[in-house]
Amino acid sequence: MNPMGIHAFVWSAGSTPEDLSRALDHSSALGYSLIEFPRLDPKKFDVPAFAQSLKAVTMGIAVTMGLQPSADISSEDAAVVATGEQVLREAVSVARDLGAQKLGGILFSAHDKYMTMPTARGRQNSIDTLRKVARYGAEAGVTINLEIVNRFESNLLNTTAQGLAFIADIGEPNVYLHLDTFHMNIEEANPADAIRAAGDRLGYFHVGESNRGFLGAGTIDYAPIFDALLDNGYADTITFESFSSAVVDKDLSIITGIWRNTWDDNVALARHAKAFIQDQMDSAARRRRITRTP
Amino acid sequence: MNPMGIHAFVWSAGSTPEDLSRALDHSSALGYSLIEFPRLDPKKFDVPAFAQSLKAVTMGIAVTMGLQPSADISSEDAAVVATGEQVLREAVSVARDLGAQKLGGILFSAHDKYMTMPTARGRQNSIDTLRKVARYGAEAGVTINLEIVNRFESNLLNTTAQGLAFIADIGEPNVYLHLDTFHMNIEEANPADAIRAAGDRLGYFHVGESNRGFLGAGTIDYAPIFDALLDNGYADTITFESFSSAVVDKDLSIITGIWRNTWDDNVALARHAKAFIQDQMDSAARRRRITRTP
Amino acid sequence: MNPMGIHAFVWSAGSTPEDLSRALDHSSALGYSLIEFPRLDPKKFDVPAFAQSLKAVTMGIAVTMGLQPSADISSEDAAVVATGEQVLREAVSVARDLGAQKLGGILFSAHDKYMTMPTARGRQNSIDTLRKVARYGAEAGVTINLEIVNRFESNLLNTTAQGLAFIADIGEPNVYLHLDTFHMNIEEANPADAIRAAGDRLGYFHVGESNRGFLGAGTIDYAPIFDALLDNGYADTITFESFSSAVVDKDLSIITGIWRNTWDDNVALARHAKAFIQDQMDSAARRRRITRTP
Amino acid sequence: MNPMGIHAFVWSAGSTPEDLSRALDHSSALGYSLIEFPRLDPKKFDVPAFAQSLKAVTMGIAVTMGLQPSADISSEDAAVVATGEQVLREAVSVARDLGAQKLGGILFSAHDKYMTMPTARGRQNSIDTLRKVARYGAEAGVTINLEIVNRFESNLLNTTAQGLAFIADIGEPNVYLHLDTFHMNIEEANPADAIRAAGDRLGYFHVGESNRGFLGAGTIDYAPIFDALLDNGYADTITFESFSSAVVDKDLSIITGIWRNTWDDNVALARHAKAFIQDQMDSAARRRRITRTP
Repeated sequence: MNPMGIHAFVWSAGSTPEDLSRALDHSSALGYSLIEFPRLDPKKFDVPAFAQSLKAVTMGIAVTMGLQPSADISSEDAAVVATGEQVLREAVSVARDLGAQKLGGILFSAHDKYMTMPTARGRQNSIDTLRKVARYGAEAGVTINLEIVNRFESNLLNTTAQGLAFIADIGEPNVYLHLDTFHMNIEEANPADAIRAAGDRLGYFHVGESNRGFLGAGTIDYAPIFDALLDNGYADTITFESFSSAVVDKDLSIITGIWRNTWDDNVALARHAKAFIQDQMDSAARRRRITRTP
Repeated sequence: MNPMGIHAFVWSAGSTPEDLSRALDHSSALGYSLIEFPRLDPKKFDVPAFAQSLKAVTMGIAVTMGLQPSADISSEDAAVVATGEQVLREAVSVARDLGAQKLGGILFSAHDKYMTMPTARGRQNSIDTLRKVARYGAEAGVTINLEIVNRFESNLLNTTAQGLAFIADIGEPNVYLHLDTFHMNIEEANPADAIRAAGDRLGYFHVGESNRGFLGAGTIDYAPIFDALLDNGYADTITFESFSSAVVDKDLSIITGIWRNTWDDNVALARHAKAFIQDQMDSAARRRRITRTP
Repeated sequence: MNPMGIHAFVWSAGSTPEDLSRALDHSSALGYSLIEFPRLDPKKFDVPAFAQSLKAVTMGIAVTMGLQPSADISSEDAAVVATGEQVLREAVSVARDLGAQKLGGILFSAHDKYMTMPTARGRQNSIDTLRKVARYGAEAGVTINLEIVNRFESNLLNTTAQGLAFIADIGEPNVYLHLDTFHMNIEEANPADAIRAAGDRLGYFHVGESNRGFLGAGTIDYAPIFDALLDNGYADTITFESFSSAVVDKDLSIITGIWRNTWDDNVALARHAKAFIQDQMDSAARRRRITRTP
Repeated sequence: MNPMGIHAFVWSAGSTPEDLSRALDHSSALGYSLIEFPRLDPKKFDVPAFAQSLKAVTMGIAVTMGLQPSADISSEDAAVVATGEQVLREAVSVARDLGAQKLGGILFSAHDKYMTMPTARGRQNSIDTLRKVARYGAEAGVTINLEIVNRFESNLLNTTAQGLAFIADIGEPNVYLHLDTFHMNIEEANPADAIRAAGDRLGYFHVGESNRGFLGAGTIDYAPIFDALLDNGYADTITFESFSSAVVDKDLSIITGIWRNTWDDNVALARHAKAFIQDQMDSAARRRRITRTP
């Protein structure tokens, strides 16, 4: 069975020591084995102290982020690209210092509703930059996981096929796909087939409902997705992500359009998600065993 | 069986007499009985001439639009709201002059990726404005159909339930919901139940795939949706909408994030959509008859 | 939330006091509030003693059965019909004596793979007999629940629509439908719509997987089914049924074609089913609340 | 695209020259390229004349059958097994003489609702017999396709996994699986995965709805099935099968429990099935192309 993770914004959008500590405690108490922290700014919190507290709970960590337009490495402006490279290098360093093996998210462009078409030159800038960041990540023991997101959150990589071609162009072995059911529900013609196509390039996996709320209270058909993860031999972490206006990160909530309150009780939400994902994995394994055993 | 319509942007984003005429001819030739024209600006094309050409093909028409930020009636700025009211009144007039019975789309806010939360005052401005527009529409014989769209295209009305409460607050009998499967796939916890909840407030219906491409090449489960339309007694037009980078409207393509080419052959696309929707309606009718007949 | 029941054959096909007692203990320990006992033959076990043990665990009970060909009330042979009536009356008595409120199952025909078409005269015999049995049930405080089964287990009532017409012809207020997802998956054009059509005639509900094994390891799409139960206002018991060659009732296993071992660990099976059904009910309630709340 | 076939009983259960000729004409007129004839008894019709008429319409043919209990090669009675072997050899000869490349159906046991468990000795008898029949088929240029059916129509092979193990035990290269969506809907934990598991052992494929009526008016989710056929590289015939009490074969209708009239207009049924299957194939190809193309 895959380890299970949870996005920290289920608990709090803050990054005070108290916020981080509470997020760790809640996640651990519910049986999650990894927590994903977005937007960790080393200027705003004490990395060594936080790394220490992580050890105390023996909890895995993943760091995710989306570039801001001012640091968009798919820009045609060299200065903006250079800023983006610096931001990504710092993120790798933070991940390494926290003991995280993965950096994920929208690392290849801004996390933004673009108002322009992607360009070939911008795509090449992104590839060239990520090649350098990936090499830096290799030294740091951190993999680079490119989150394939819907058209409203990036104009560059919206499908698995685009991501695979992009990774091939980068050409570094520690660059992977970070797939997410919420985004796949909008963009993929066939989410299960996309997961199979990802093959050993699948590095990180998000489970989020179609409306970003409680799992099972949306339109996603999970059974073929978990069957495909099994087909794919994906053994790494499956992380639950959900947003509600009950927990607001000023930037991320606005970018992702969290206008509604889909839940208030985050403990109930996270407990349910854990059981739901566990049952999806168990059921996929049962279907596989029954289908393949005479 | 419901009449079937098609969005003009399957054919062309232009609004020259030739563009409009070609769109009418193609739609009519494939057996569609209504065509939906978005963004009809009376300053840019000759309404009376176009109305005349519509009569020649005995084709129904619907007019849809999304407000621009400068005309956002959910703004807190009275001048912007006044501009929006004027734009909407003109759209009603155009619809009337073309013989359209329906004005649809994002009539209640800007068609935009908002970067702010909706406000109570903005919502009230929108309601008060639409009440006036609806009364003007009643005189013109034009219904007002509010398109419930996903969080990235408006911050105000993302679900049917929000739309129904909003319509109740407007309090005019000729204001309806304009629902769309593409948007419902993202926002509704249960699209079929939302359609049933819409009841007699459902005024117009869009069928679009999850990725805006060919019907059946996405994640939407259509059978429960067409069952619900039948349950609902919805007898009005079902309109097919699809966007590809093969046909570009500068504004709409950018706002809706059409970065990819999902089809080139629009005749094949439209012919397929017609047969697909017809079969969904036929199959729903068969399921109903079998299920309800001893 | 609906009370949940479990079929006794998950635990044992035996009807010794020890078998029955163990079934009760297991069911109660896992949080089920009703147990369904099939094929209770008053000649083979001590009804009063068993009724006493039921009180000790405060567990609800349902009695189900299928008529044998020799007691087929849809026969054209008056003697066979009379035998069937007697068998049904005894079953009502046993149910009453055990404190059960429901008699369910294939009460209208033999539980058998028929090798003849149903006949109008046989159908009328069944109706006339059940009218009398229903009246006897009314005196006994026991409702009659007709289980709609697949074509291989009866030739008379395979769909909800057939069942509703049949019940109308009986004309007694305490005759209900007993629906079952396993059978609906084979026979109904639209299981969810069938549940809605059943309306207040739905008296008892079985959840069984398409292959009669673990829930979720088959082809049934449960979400629309639980949505429909909610739409229907069904508040009565939902009972889990599963068969494996690990627990064999000589007659029932053969009639229902249980050739394979789909599970060995019945405690794991029953615990999973409880959680699965609970989550389906919870998720349906969430979908409803989100869809209907602005 | 796969060639498409149709079961002759859509047209008529008779085997007079007129019946056969009409079935051919109807099938050909609707664009089917193969017709499946069940229960062709060389004693009852003129094989050479029929073979001649087949050439006239350039229509492919498949022959299918189910063994009768008196010819059950999974019996423990040597005489019954010997009868079965003779019946199968004759069927191979008829297939060869008609120019059919495939013999399909329930060739490994009786087509019957068994009232006994399968036995190891009966299974071995079936394997040993089919090995001989397969060799005879190899000489005749006829493949042996074992139809995996639901528990009510055989007790021996109900799942693809059982079929694959059985074929391995036979050990002849011209023995394949004949899969059918109607049966898979009841027995397989995961029909799509079963198709993938079948690999190059898939020799013939039936599409039938869950209730054996109109495609799309039942519970089967076809998209993953057609995706799996594509994954599997299956390029051979896909045959539509449907039964209604409107067309009655005395034996087959009783065995398969066709008590209801699910359609009267077989031309409408067959035309719809052709378009439905075509669209499923087209849509699967589109999903594949979109999912796999950057």
